[in-house]
Amino acid sequence: MKYCTHCGGGVELKVPDGDNRPRHVCTACGRIHYQNPRIIVGTLPVWQDRVLLCRRAIEPRYGYWTLPAGFMENGESAAEGAQRETLEEACARVRVLEPYTLVSVPFIDQLHLLFRAELLDLDFAPGTESLEVRLFEEADIPWDDLAFRSVSLTLRAFFEERRSGRFGVHHVSLPPIDN
Amino acid sequence: MKYCTHCGGGVELKVPDGDNRPRHVCTACGRIHYQNPRIIVGTLPVWQDRVLLCRRAIEPRYGYWTLPAGFMENGESAAEGAQRETLEEACARVRVLEPYTLVSVPFIDQLHLLFRAELLDLDFAPGTESLEVRLFEEADIPWDDLAFRSVSLTLRAFFEERRSGRFGVHHVSLPPIDN
Ligand SMILES: [Zn+2]
Ligand SMILES: [Zn+2]
Repeated sequence: MKYCTHCGGGVELKVPDGDNRPRHVCTACGRIHYQNPRIIVGTLPVWQDRVLLCRRAIEPRYGYWTLPAGFMENGESAAEGAQRETLEEACARVRVLEPYTLVSVPFIDQLHLLFRAELLDLDFAPGTESLEVRLFEEADIPWDDLAFRSVSLTLRAFFEERRSGRFGVHHVSLPPIDN
Repeated sequence: MKYCTHCGGGVELKVPDGDNRPRHVCTACGRIHYQNPRIIVGTLPVWQDRVLLCRRAIEPRYGYWTLPAGFMENGESAAEGAQRETLEEACARVRVLEPYTLVSVPFIDQLHLLFRAELLDLDFAPGTESLEVRLFEEADIPWDDLAFRSVSLTLRAFFEERRSGRFGVHHVSLPPIDN
């Protein structure tokens, strides 16, 4: 951030009075511009013993498999956002059930929130951000070709807990990947 | 938003190609500036049969009772943010347990996320944003003087579920209040 959204003046990084971390503060009008984490909402759509995955048609992770998810928008609830993303990426209609995984990704300032969901019919198809949409049984999940750690840990938790039929809520914070 | 944070040019509201909702787009450099919901993280700190509440020293809802909570910051996990807010507002040390209530407030573009937590000692005190910090038994909760609906529904769920000892996760979306 270089310029103030309110007056167009230059901003500088400094700790405002009564605060304890650097913020972008306008040198002209004095406004403080806060930057906060963004929320990714999505679903784990389930049909009988299968789950729906999308193969990404966009970067990052082009060509890898993911759960339908994307940035939560202003003016919607988390569940509405998750349902909307499922419709946009997989043209799939779901009934959103419970929050299932809550994954903090602090090094990229994101919070991922995935809901369990019931796929309502088999009328799905790739949206513009997907190359392919398919149902997978546990044995066929492409574990080595999943797009994100939040996706693999959600699938692992689901197949593990499905045996008992009792689903918890899982929260975890991911460290950066060492390469 | 009136000016581009990147180049200081004027912005206009328009639907970018391939998008389906109006965004702030810079008329000079073309950058799209997305605006997304902000996350409020906090805790429900529990000590034996009592819960810790803070009386607000700031607007909105000055003088009303609340759970310690505030905006999640970049670079932290949701649980770390909840723990930090508890320390800042109530000078209280907690062990964060499970996500408990997830409250969408779409008309003000917020998502509230409250964790159950275990208060570690009785060494708490008002932080700069609190007038007073106290432990309350169920019978003494100031139900008519709670600051926010996400606080009252979290307390109600807790005292209800405590009888069984089995805590779920609660997600709800709040409509605007009619006055
Ligand atoms: Zn300014
Ligand atoms: Zn610009």
